[in-house]
Amino acid sequence: MVSNEVNQYIEKLIPARSEHVLKMEQYAKQHDVPIMELSGMETLLTYVRLKKPARILEVGTAIGYSAIRMALASEASEIVSIERDEERYNIAKENVNVLDLTNRITLLLGDANELQSQVEHYAPYDFMFIDAAKGQYQHFFDHYSTMLSKDGIIITDNVLFRGYVAEEKGLESRRLRSLVKKIRSFNEYIMQHPDYYSSILPVGDGMMVSVRKS
Amino acid sequence: MVSNEVNQYIEKLIPARSEHVLKMEQYAKQHDVPIMELSGMETLLTYVRLKKPARILEVGTAIGYSAIRMALASEASEIVSIERDEERYNIAKENVNVLDLTNRITLLLGDANELQSQVEHYAPYDFMFIDAAKGQYQHFFDHYSTMLSKDGIIITDNVLFRGYVAEEKGLESRRLRSLVKKIRSFNEYIMQHPDYYSSILPVGDGMMVSVRKS
Repeated sequence: MVSNEVNQYIEKLIPARSEHVLKMEQYAKQHDVPIMELSGMETLLTYVRLKKPARILEVGTAIGYSAIRMALASEASEIVSIERDEERYNIAKENVNVLDLTNRITLLLGDANELQSQVEHYAPYDFMFIDAAKGQYQHFFDHYSTMLSKDGIIITDNVLFRGYVAEEKGLESRRLRSLVKKIRSFNEYIMQHPDYYSSILPVGDGMMVSVRKS
Repeated sequence: MVSNEVNQYIEKLIPARSEHVLKMEQYAKQHDVPIMELSGMETLLTYVRLKKPARILEVGTAIGYSAIRMALASEASEIVSIERDEERYNIAKENVNVLDLTNRITLLLGDANELQSQVEHYAPYDFMFIDAAKGQYQHFFDHYSTMLSKDGIIITDNVLFRGYVAEEKGLESRRLRSLVKKIRSFNEYIMQHPDYYSSILPVGDGMMVSVRKS
């Protein structure tokens, strides 16, 4: 949503990542695994670094890229991350092993809607990052926000969905139209939610930042 | 830097502001006073709400809009804000009075480079917001970051300068070219600064978020 020139300018200034992190980025590119864009990731990390959360819940591990980046950005944080795709879950496990982060990152395999009791075991969380099936964002938010500590923060990714949410027409696929409708309704729901102050940042694919009212 | 459609979509979802706040926005528009765009302001406020800083330093009050928004967003915060333009300073004073925030917002009149001892009087600050003469950002940062508390955060606005920093050509005015050069060099300086983790957010006019390493 930002011009290529601006995006390239920002990316060029981002400090070098370690070899392992670069390898994950390459893997994602080669295998079409959607991981966060660099500038979205850097934005997410500003909140992690500022909050220094004791415990983070991530919905949507994919190959573990964001969980690992958050763990590396905040040494005191423990992360619980859930993923329903077994192949990705296994790759994430490997990545977490290789980076020697098994003591701080707990990966759970299963559907986010069915893992509640396991996730609850590690609650409360003071930071949540939702980056999973966009059609279910409101379910995820409602299920898991009950486990958020006072003063906690929830960040939900992809809420602008490549800008589609802002356009009235142009989407031919019915599936996409229905998804856009769901994301719009999620955005309205969260922006009016009485328990949170929320803002949509036009960064990456659109990032909803919700700080719990105390 | 974000498409108009996306920007309008985001702005439409932002909760209503109070009458006084809207009046300030109108005044700024009518009198060509540069205040932050709505979505940039909302982004700034996410950090204020998350950090709940005891003391905020703002460099560049203008008419008091951002100081007032920060004060309203975080009831426990006290704000020191400096402005070198006397007319704007007086308008800011009036706005702070009208909103009954004189006990939490202290306005100082003068050049940021000459107010150090007065500013120091209220130090340390755990949140700083720099939104003033862009050519002097590095001076401001170096002068005032010494007053930042451990785990503090510094946000610097306008670091993408309408995207000019990312373009190689097209600027005819020598003054603008020189300003772009200074902002670029500030950005490189901060992104490599050993004491801060920094990220540039492509929000509003570009926002540098720097979290002090602890």
